[in-house]
Amino acid sequence: MRFDGRKQDELRTIEVETDYLIHPEGSVLISAGATKVICNASIEEKVPPFMRGEGKGWISAEYAMLPRATGTRNIRESSKGKVTGRTMEIQRLIGRALRAVVDLEALGERTIWLDCDVIQADGGTRTASITGAFIALTLAIHKLHKEVPFEKFPVQDYLAATSVGILEDGTAVLDLNYHEDSAANVDMNIIMTGSGQFVELQGTGEEATFSETELVELLALGRAGINELTKMQHEKLGQEIDELIRGEK
Amino acid sequence: MRFDGRKQDELRTIEVETDYLIHPEGSVLISAGATKVICNASIEEKVPPFMRGEGKGWISAEYAMLPRATGTRNIRESSKGKVTGRTMEIQRLIGRALRAVVDLEALGERTIWLDCDVIQADGGTRTASITGAFIALTLAIHKLHKEVPFEKFPVQDYLAATSVGILEDGTAVLDLNYHEDSAANVDMNIIMTGSGQFVELQGTGEEATFSETELVELLALGRAGINELTKMQHEKLGQEIDELIRGEK
Amino acid sequence: MRFDGRKQDELRTIEVETDYLIHPEGSVLISAGATKVICNASIEEKVPPFMRGEGKGWISAEYAMLPRATGTRNIRESSKGKVTGRTMEIQRLIGRALRAVVDLEALGERTIWLDCDVIQADGGTRTASITGAFIALTLAIHKLHKEVPFEKFPVQDYLAATSVGILEDGTAVLDLNYHEDSAANVDMNIIMTGSGQFVELQGTGEEATFSETELVELLALGRAGINELTKMQHEKLGQEIDELIRGEK
Amino acid sequence: MRFDGRKQDELRTIEVETDYLIHPEGSVLISAGATKVICNASIEEKVPPFMRGEGKGWISAEYAMLPRATGTRNIRESSKGKVTGRTMEIQRLIGRALRAVVDLEALGERTIWLDCDVIQADGGTRTASITGAFIALTLAIHKLHKEVPFEKFPVQDYLAATSVGILEDGTAVLDLNYHEDSAANVDMNIIMTGSGQFVELQGTGEEATFSETELVELLALGRAGINELTKMQHEKLGQEIDELIRGEK
Amino acid sequence: MRFDGRKQDELRTIEVETDYLIHPEGSVLISAGATKVICNASIEEKVPPFMRGEGKGWISAEYAMLPRATGTRNIRESSKGKVTGRTMEIQRLIGRALRAVVDLEALGERTIWLDCDVIQADGGTRTASITGAFIALTLAIHKLHKEVPFEKFPVQDYLAATSVGILEDGTAVLDLNYHEDSAANVDMNIIMTGSGQFVELQGTGEEATFSETELVELLALGRAGINELTKMQHEKLGQEIDELIRGEK
Amino acid sequence: MRFDGRKQDELRTIEVETDYLIHPEGSVLISAGATKVICNASIEEKVPPFMRGEGKGWISAEYAMLPRATGTRNIRESSKGKVTGRTMEIQRLIGRALRAVVDLEALGERTIWLDCDVIQADGGTRTASITGAFIALTLAIHKLHKEVPFEKFPVQDYLAATSVGILEDGTAVLDLNYHEDSAANVDMNIIMTGSGQFVELQGTGEEATFSETELVELLALGRAGINELTKMQHEKLGQEIDELIRGEK
Repeated sequence: MRFDGRKQDELRTIEVETDYLIHPEGSVLISAGATKVICNASIEEKVPPFMRGEGKGWISAEYAMLPRATGTRNIRESSKGKVTGRTMEIQRLIGRALRAVVDLEALGERTIWLDCDVIQADGGTRTASITGAFIALTLAIHKLHKEVPFEKFPVQDYLAATSVGILEDGTAVLDLNYHEDSAANVDMNIIMTGSGQFVELQGTGEEATFSETELVELLALGRAGINELTKMQHEKLGQEIDELIRGEK
Repeated sequence: MRFDGRKQDELRTIEVETDYLIHPEGSVLISAGATKVICNASIEEKVPPFMRGEGKGWISAEYAMLPRATGTRNIRESSKGKVTGRTMEIQRLIGRALRAVVDLEALGERTIWLDCDVIQADGGTRTASITGAFIALTLAIHKLHKEVPFEKFPVQDYLAATSVGILEDGTAVLDLNYHEDSAANVDMNIIMTGSGQFVELQGTGEEATFSETELVELLALGRAGINELTKMQHEKLGQEIDELIRGEK
Repeated sequence: MRFDGRKQDELRTIEVETDYLIHPEGSVLISAGATKVICNASIEEKVPPFMRGEGKGWISAEYAMLPRATGTRNIRESSKGKVTGRTMEIQRLIGRALRAVVDLEALGERTIWLDCDVIQADGGTRTASITGAFIALTLAIHKLHKEVPFEKFPVQDYLAATSVGILEDGTAVLDLNYHEDSAANVDMNIIMTGSGQFVELQGTGEEATFSETELVELLALGRAGINELTKMQHEKLGQEIDELIRGEK
Repeated sequence: MRFDGRKQDELRTIEVETDYLIHPEGSVLISAGATKVICNASIEEKVPPFMRGEGKGWISAEYAMLPRATGTRNIRESSKGKVTGRTMEIQRLIGRALRAVVDLEALGERTIWLDCDVIQADGGTRTASITGAFIALTLAIHKLHKEVPFEKFPVQDYLAATSVGILEDGTAVLDLNYHEDSAANVDMNIIMTGSGQFVELQGTGEEATFSETELVELLALGRAGINELTKMQHEKLGQEIDELIRGEK
Repeated sequence: MRFDGRKQDELRTIEVETDYLIHPEGSVLISAGATKVICNASIEEKVPPFMRGEGKGWISAEYAMLPRATGTRNIRESSKGKVTGRTMEIQRLIGRALRAVVDLEALGERTIWLDCDVIQADGGTRTASITGAFIALTLAIHKLHKEVPFEKFPVQDYLAATSVGILEDGTAVLDLNYHEDSAANVDMNIIMTGSGQFVELQGTGEEATFSETELVELLALGRAGINELTKMQHEKLGQEIDELIRGEK
Repeated sequence: MRFDGRKQDELRTIEVETDYLIHPEGSVLISAGATKVICNASIEEKVPPFMRGEGKGWISAEYAMLPRATGTRNIRESSKGKVTGRTMEIQRLIGRALRAVVDLEALGERTIWLDCDVIQADGGTRTASITGAFIALTLAIHKLHKEVPFEKFPVQDYLAATSVGILEDGTAVLDLNYHEDSAANVDMNIIMTGSGQFVELQGTGEEATFSETELVELLALGRAGINELTKMQHEKLGQEIDELIRGEK
């Protein structure tokens, strides 16, 4: 039994509010326990300079936290005048993961920006960002599709992320909150598609290491968690979008 | 009759959700029509270097918008590596206004940070920030008071802000939304206390000017609007805090 | 009687040296008591990117102080690597004010830069900058006019600025020097045209407030001061330019 | 057979020159095929502010490339005025990995800086940096040990890194060069200890995904490669240091 | 005969106004022809961190140009967010040169800042800055001396700078203006003491070279120019300060 | 006899390894005693914006040190977010010097970048950079020449640099190492062509001065040193390139 009463393989309560804000083409407020992230998708009808004229689209993500998303106040990155290494790592990860399930040629020469702004943090902000950003992205692409249908719907599969880890007592657990994460020996982020393929795997033993046996256990936990998450995404997005993603329509 | 059906002297619907987030000492989500701002107050038990040892506190504000708070996406200030002039002007204004109703000596050597993050913008973001930040600030100070009572409650009066302006057709109106603001000839922000004193007055005729008669009309509209806002603040903060502010307790 | 022997409604001695430097299209050294500002106008035959092709001009201002314009040395903003909030606020104010009396369409697609460099500061540097910059701007536009006459002279009215405030003893005074300004309860900058219209009004009670009665008194003092300043501008610019501004020529 | 004649499970030729430069406490030039990295360890007798007084040491890494380490010249990060996201990700990774095999309490309150400067790049620069930095770090710590012996030698295990990946034709290979890496579907960096524990695992399918079967194949290739690399480290560091690492001395 | 009517070995008219501004401890406006530089000396009663506790003083210089000191407007370095290489080179040169004639131990643990702000440029701004800064520095040190006499007056000799160069037609000339400088083959800055010692010599053939014979001719011109300049400095500073510099008092 | 056993007029051992790295068009590792610099030349088929369309080429240099090139570790300029004044001064010097012996019109509209990265420093890093960069530059231009012969070979003469100085005991010496340099009274960098013309002369008496007699002695030492260096360059570049430089082919 875990600190917050969950079982080893139990996700925190996930809530997703779609059309959260009025301006973005796709807008989602996702909560995973006390972690809350606003994920907004914005469509820009051009691509970065290095891609112009190739007939392909691009997906770019940015990530930030409100200064008081956390227990003590953090200085804003705009005040520091630079983005921290942690933020850069996370936003590169989110963009890369989303691109894995989008056919950039089908998307055409446009950029979709995903802004993931954490308004409250309790561990797992990057994985909640990916899971929520997938929904915002798909809603934005679907909005485009309703105006001028794509020949091939650019989103090709579901995509969700979760964390798994090994606590100090050696227990492997799913979906760590901040309390668990800060004391864990091993922390692993898993990003998978709806069809069960890996997109990204990042396991880290900060001042610790892990064995192949432990790895196998962590992967099993992660796979089960992702499965729940992509089911939730299916429900939120509805039947019509599901058929578009599956290429059945 | 205005574009959105309001009368000349009518505020937009104001909603305030207190204790919006779990970590900050004071946390408010304020909406004025479609404008939504998260106002968080954080207590830091020290003051800036230039004030150390003077036995006085400080209040500092920061303001930002989510990239997609607006109709088209704005580049993050953290990505630009610097804070724009507009942001600096607004955050200096918020801090200065709040300090006008707080007895910094009664507060003692601590800083209260007010973070105003606009998640959705439809005009009047700076005035909504001030009106909301006052509530977050007072809640945070009250939280301190409940732990170790202040001899003198540092918040000395209510404080609210609104905008008034002259539309292209010459009509003076209260609480402009984005649509009105972008076409107005004159735009004035008024910050006043609960007892009807001016704290700040900023009237600007961008590529236009205004007469003393117009000024008088604008001030009357503003005064009435502020009156409604400070009444709302009283209700949200409740009787006990009201007595502390009035020095009756 | 004030500290420096002036009456309540008395401006400091104003001196203006036109054609102060040889390179700028308009160049003025303005002194208001011990405050000295070099105001240079430079013409650039293009507009900022966001305005291209609209057939309109632009006026942009920059403001800075020499490190030793003040009693103690300030670190240069170039060494800090960024412009402070105070500087941004002032340069935005100067540009906005000047644009209120210039017909940007009559100016055509060009930018006029106003550089206001304070070489000695004794309070009122932003208002002296505006009053001086108006002259430099008008001289630069007149220089253009002599080469290729404008159909409509772009400068439409005089423009001057002054400060008023309420001292600690409650006296309302005109044109505060540094000594008065640093101890004043209320500080208000007033920018008006030659025909007596307001362009900008910025009243601030830093850690203090003011009543409507006090506001009325301050406005009266400011109006009288501005009147003197625009008369001085008329004299410095001469009869020919006056007729152009008044549209009589 | 691979492009450069190697077998699927064959590392590129590794060369390590120790004591490469005269100033650093540990200095290594490591080559993996055409990839060449200078790894320098510097000892600083203090820790970062957030760790002072805890009696623990710290290991911090920085990574950079010469502008012409690559086929076309890159702009220096010092000229850009900021470090890219890629660089930050890599230097955070190197530091984190090295800390996993060092007992920071045994090290005492000092920081060891690892500077990994790529002078020639042909894929695998981050893994070569880690493998080389481990040697430089151990040499620097051993130098301290010879002056004043540690009670417990802070380096607790060998540490090496390599990359594995899946080429476009589906073949899984070890130690990708730039040619292979730029066309691979899946790229995974594996960091392991001499005793076969994982320290970090980062698998990415940029615009592609991978299955659990493929993961298993990649891990087997990586494990074999790391084994060769830690043997090489043992030989370079010699018998005395090996005994210290194994705690046999 | 030169473009502006001067002879080969003729300096431009030098004018020096001392006590130019009221706040700085030493303040000079120096003109060399159309080149005008404000040189202000500020005393700070501490030294940079790397020098604390050594009982020695420091002299640091900063140099800048008004945006419109030149024929076309330059972007401010504060707006660019960084100081250019040219500015850095010049301010390092000014500081180094002044330190050569000051006994830093006699000065005691204080820093003297020299701010050289070019308000109008016509070639030779760095040499005029040095010649003027020497006077401002000496006045500031003399002001200290009048309050608490130094045992040994820290300024040990006069210091002045000038430029020499070889024009396109091969003529060697003294004190180049902008017109000459921009077309010269060789440009040399010479900084010498009142007693005829070299402090700094910087000769540059931008896309050209010069022979030893030419060098000898340039040095002779420079020596004669410096001689005139240090005489002028003596006159401006007066008899009492001259005796202090010569150690006769 | 000097500290390291050299005579007054003796250069340190110079070693030059050409084709040091595989990617750059010209690549040299130059050592002067313990000072080691990698000099890479990169050809870019365009010129900076301010030169476009003039039919001329450009040569630009950048200089940096590895953090641990020196006895104690220096913070990277990329981490500081800006390039120091010293670095800027040196890279401007290297570029300017190389341009003096290259016919930029003969080069055509292309830029050659010279990256001088000091991997180990023991005094004289800027002069070694220039001497080495000349070789890298010439190799890169020769590589272009072999593909499409230039009508006129752009490199017009040899170019080398050395330092001379006056030690504390008054001895004038050639090619100072760090130990000598840090204690010298006078330090002079001399850059000359193969035909004995000066390109740049920078003599500095940091907190000291020098006489004309000493200058003459320093120039003689420098001339002899440069003579040896350009002979070495001739040998390294070979007969064919020598004839191209001399215009005999």
